[in-house]
Amino acid sequence: MAITLGPNQYGKAEVRLVTVNRTGPVHEIKDLTVSTSLRGDLAATHLTGDNAGVLATDTQKNTVYAFAKESPVGEIEDFALRLGRHFVREHGNITGARVLVDEHAWDRIAVDGKPHEHSFSRASDEKRSTAVTVDGERAWVVSGLRDLVVLKSTGSEFHGFPHDKYTTLAETDDRILATAVTARWRYQGTDVDWSKSFTEVRRLMLEKFATLHSYSLQQTLYAMGEAVLRERPEVAEIRLSLPNRHHFLVDLTPFGLSNDNEVFYAADRPYGLIEGTVLRDDAEEAGLAWHTLPTF
Amino acid sequence: MAITLGPNQYGKAEVRLVTVNRTGPVHEIKDLTVSTSLRGDLAATHLTGDNAGVLATDTQKNTVYAFAKESPVGEIEDFALRLGRHFVREHGNITGARVLVDEHAWDRIAVDGKPHEHSFSRASDEKRSTAVTVDGERAWVVSGLRDLVVLKSTGSEFHGFPHDKYTTLAETDDRILATAVTARWRYQGTDVDWSKSFTEVRRLMLEKFATLHSYSLQQTLYAMGEAVLRERPEVAEIRLSLPNRHHFLVDLTPFGLSNDNEVFYAADRPYGLIEGTVLRDDAEEAGLAWHTLPTF
Amino acid sequence: MAITLGPNQYGKAEVRLVTVNRTGPVHEIKDLTVSTSLRGDLAATHLTGDNAGVLATDTQKNTVYAFAKESPVGEIEDFALRLGRHFVREHGNITGARVLVDEHAWDRIAVDGKPHEHSFSRASDEKRSTAVTVDGERAWVVSGLRDLVVLKSTGSEFHGFPHDKYTTLAETDDRILATAVTARWRYQGTDVDWSKSFTEVRRLMLEKFATLHSYSLQQTLYAMGEAVLRERPEVAEIRLSLPNRHHFLVDLTPFGLSNDNEVFYAADRPYGLIEGTVLRDDAEEAGLAWHTLPTF
Amino acid sequence: MAITLGPNQYGKAEVRLVTVNRTGPVHEIKDLTVSTSLRGDLAATHLTGDNAGVLATDTQKNTVYAFAKESPVGEIEDFALRLGRHFVREHGNITGARVLVDEHAWDRIAVDGKPHEHSFSRASDEKRSTAVTVDGERAWVVSGLRDLVVLKSTGSEFHGFPHDKYTTLAETDDRILATAVTARWRYQGTDVDWSKSFTEVRRLMLEKFATLHSYSLQQTLYAMGEAVLRERPEVAEIRLSLPNRHHFLVDLTPFGLSNDNEVFYAADRPYGLIEGTVLRDDAEEAGLAWHTLPTF
Repeated sequence: MAITLGPNQYGKAEVRLVTVNRTGPVHEIKDLTVSTSLRGDLAATHLTGDNAGVLATDTQKNTVYAFAKESPVGEIEDFALRLGRHFVREHGNITGARVLVDEHAWDRIAVDGKPHEHSFSRASDEKRSTAVTVDGERAWVVSGLRDLVVLKSTGSEFHGFPHDKYTTLAETDDRILATAVTARWRYQGTDVDWSKSFTEVRRLMLEKFATLHSYSLQQTLYAMGEAVLRERPEVAEIRLSLPNRHHFLVDLTPFGLSNDNEVFYAADRPYGLIEGTVLRDDAEEAGLAWHTLPTF
Repeated sequence: MAITLGPNQYGKAEVRLVTVNRTGPVHEIKDLTVSTSLRGDLAATHLTGDNAGVLATDTQKNTVYAFAKESPVGEIEDFALRLGRHFVREHGNITGARVLVDEHAWDRIAVDGKPHEHSFSRASDEKRSTAVTVDGERAWVVSGLRDLVVLKSTGSEFHGFPHDKYTTLAETDDRILATAVTARWRYQGTDVDWSKSFTEVRRLMLEKFATLHSYSLQQTLYAMGEAVLRERPEVAEIRLSLPNRHHFLVDLTPFGLSNDNEVFYAADRPYGLIEGTVLRDDAEEAGLAWHTLPTF
Repeated sequence: MAITLGPNQYGKAEVRLVTVNRTGPVHEIKDLTVSTSLRGDLAATHLTGDNAGVLATDTQKNTVYAFAKESPVGEIEDFALRLGRHFVREHGNITGARVLVDEHAWDRIAVDGKPHEHSFSRASDEKRSTAVTVDGERAWVVSGLRDLVVLKSTGSEFHGFPHDKYTTLAETDDRILATAVTARWRYQGTDVDWSKSFTEVRRLMLEKFATLHSYSLQQTLYAMGEAVLRERPEVAEIRLSLPNRHHFLVDLTPFGLSNDNEVFYAADRPYGLIEGTVLRDDAEEAGLAWHTLPTF
Repeated sequence: MAITLGPNQYGKAEVRLVTVNRTGPVHEIKDLTVSTSLRGDLAATHLTGDNAGVLATDTQKNTVYAFAKESPVGEIEDFALRLGRHFVREHGNITGARVLVDEHAWDRIAVDGKPHEHSFSRASDEKRSTAVTVDGERAWVVSGLRDLVVLKSTGSEFHGFPHDKYTTLAETDDRILATAVTARWRYQGTDVDWSKSFTEVRRLMLEKFATLHSYSLQQTLYAMGEAVLRERPEVAEIRLSLPNRHHFLVDLTPFGLSNDNEVFYAADRPYGLIEGTVLRDDAEEAGLAWHTLPTF
């Protein structure tokens, strides 16, 4: 029997980077949270504390800030690719990198009905995200969004489920359906119009959520994914994680009142959690694209 | 020496209420978090555990839900006034009530560019709020907003501050100014167009934040409050709590790079905290309006 | 009509300070979160942005760190008093200060059953706290604790409450009683053995919570406060805020099972919230002791 | 090209279960958060909304509560195995289950120095956890702990790392080393004394963290894992995720003060994140044990 070092990685997590493009009077801001992690020949530091191959996490942080100055940040996918490739190319023992970026959205404050040049208010809590994996000369991009909270006040049913000895749930042909969308989609290649693709994927998911008459959150999930794959050839695969944010009808009969889907209690816990993948069968192989991302 | 019971209150906190107005195909939703607390002759339960005067917090919760059905919720101020007055009028030993309501905003999902009838996405994390106090026949309304996060990428300076032996901060004539606005304003009377007043107060604060060239966050605070009081006679007083969400310029000189207010580190803690009141000197007295609300 | 500046304060919030006493091989650590705020003649910065009287919040932060080196931190009450008095004495336009300190507890890691000299593990999430107010030459100390979560699995009843048209709660003679204690107690004077007093106040509250057969959380609250005042003459007054962390009995009858207070659902929201004050009638006046602290 | 359903699962997340063993005057409590998820032939609900094979997440929740009554919960690993096997055995289209359990610890309140029979206070925020995977007749157990926060005030160095153009970090031979341990270890088989194994794995990790003179957090990670594998043959593999909770030395030189590792600033973000696996080379294969758990 021998004890050995298995898979490992290390890096700097949650570097908060805000950039201002001041080339004209109309400022543009980027608000990002960046996490880098590196892989490679790292046995020495684990076994003996010899750090000759350990690019300090502080240096990784500095690199994020310096790169933000050396050229415009641009789309988060491009920024993450530049960072990941840099670490792998410049450091002999580093063979792989994973760069995660969350982008926080800001709106312009309206003054006299017109968007202000340099004053902003924070938009919703939704984050655009990307996870870029670099391994040697190869790279994969999985982009996505998180905390996109949506709700339908009708157009959702749930019935026909099996009844075992522990089943008490009533069937319903009209309920609130609400969820906080976490979506991640894998791109084919890295030659993509990231901004346009993100906008369209998001739109396709939202429109399908809104318009599909739903018989289960699983059905909604699949339809959202299918809508994306049907329209966006650059997307090989999409994974959705949809917590069912239960809105329970309040029983008002003790007070002599009806409740025709008007008054609800929004519950915190527990919650249903529906997770699924939609993919095209002729897509290129996933390789390391999903490595370190949550799976199901 | 005797030991006695001092000020006290009790109630149900954070009742999550979502209502759907389904009178036509275009649904309207209200998403509220309601907290009630009652005051009055409550010595018995404290001293002996005799609960004859304790309207159960569970009953308070039920009342919130029943009231949401018995008549349309309407503006949060009206809903809170109805609830507070009910508790005081119906229960002899209850002489006062405080009702807090937060309203969570939703947008309609756009489908083919048009707002959907019954599908929504969560707007920003900003909450519209009200704190209503009822004492016997009297009532006070303090409304507000929380978590309105704003940022100016220029138009903010900070210098001229005193230097003592612990001062190291550099003066600056150009910095990012960012904060998460918590505002509470006291109304004169309860005969107010709550919705319009809220919209205008919010607009006045945002426009002033955007357009004022700032020499301190205190100056911005006062100007925001003054703008409200100047335009909105129904507002007697406004209190603002503004955390200074520091965005520190990253020192890129070790890497041979300049940084002309382009690359920033958004810090979490510690943060400056600026709090102040702006009031009109001929306003009616505050009475119990601010009772139980954070003070400074 | 004139618009004027009302009450205001400013400072640095949540300075994270960790000190290590290394005078011998057995290290002692202090882990504090410190917030300072100053009051006084601050009209200029609000009205014109003139900062000549604004001791920068960055300087306040530096002062916290420097003071931690200049003499041992000691008890949090003493540290807060030193800081508050410094700001008021050294800066002519600053007439008042409020210093809040939370202390985070650490245990020593046991190695071979013995406490290690310099290795620690974080204790519970409970915080010891103090709020010191300095106004000119006077000072007040309100100390306390937060997030002390306690639970009784029996010895708690709740019945005899009034029934109105919205009441559905069943009476019970045996329930789980659980809460997260926030307590603040006002000291008479500042010549107190802070450490011993804290330990004893905490012990008295815990023992009373454990041993009192409770008919309401209000009764438990009062008894906890009374126990403190009876034994600790240095305490003038104590305020308790007790969320009722409901543990609801799960209805297992659909599955043909009884549930004799064995299986519970721990609910998140809503929750009861019981707040009250216990005081001695011959105590010295509170003055500004409670200023800016949550009230009820 | 065809679009198809890929990997998926669904279930109920974060069921809050508290049980009281009342067989004698000395009560025992268990405080668990349970999440179940099921896999199998679930195409119908995704493609058409036919729910005939969808055991409702509400039923899964009910099952958790009923099982807690039908027999004593016991160790969380046994409880999770019972639940997971039940779902797979009883429902023909369900071929796999994943059950996650977190256990929250409580201490007894001391009264007159003796532990009380039915009154408890919450221990630290550390959670004991398990992740059980059932696939047909097979089952795997990965247990662990989270949020075990530890700190060494000396005995940690960091130097010898490479310097590239973005490196500014100073080398140090004495620093604070602090982290919040997340550990997961895979068991060989399911015939294990879970309680004893947990206690010993935890003790071995803590003692190694305390006593190892560290040259990198990676070295500490590996040594902690190695200590576990060396002593506990039932453990096949252990994965550790260690955020480096940076404690930065405060520069007090502007104030004419030295700082010999006495005064630190505890930073929130960014943080280093060190993740690694230690395994024995003759362990049985992992199979599905790690499926859906975070990877690196």
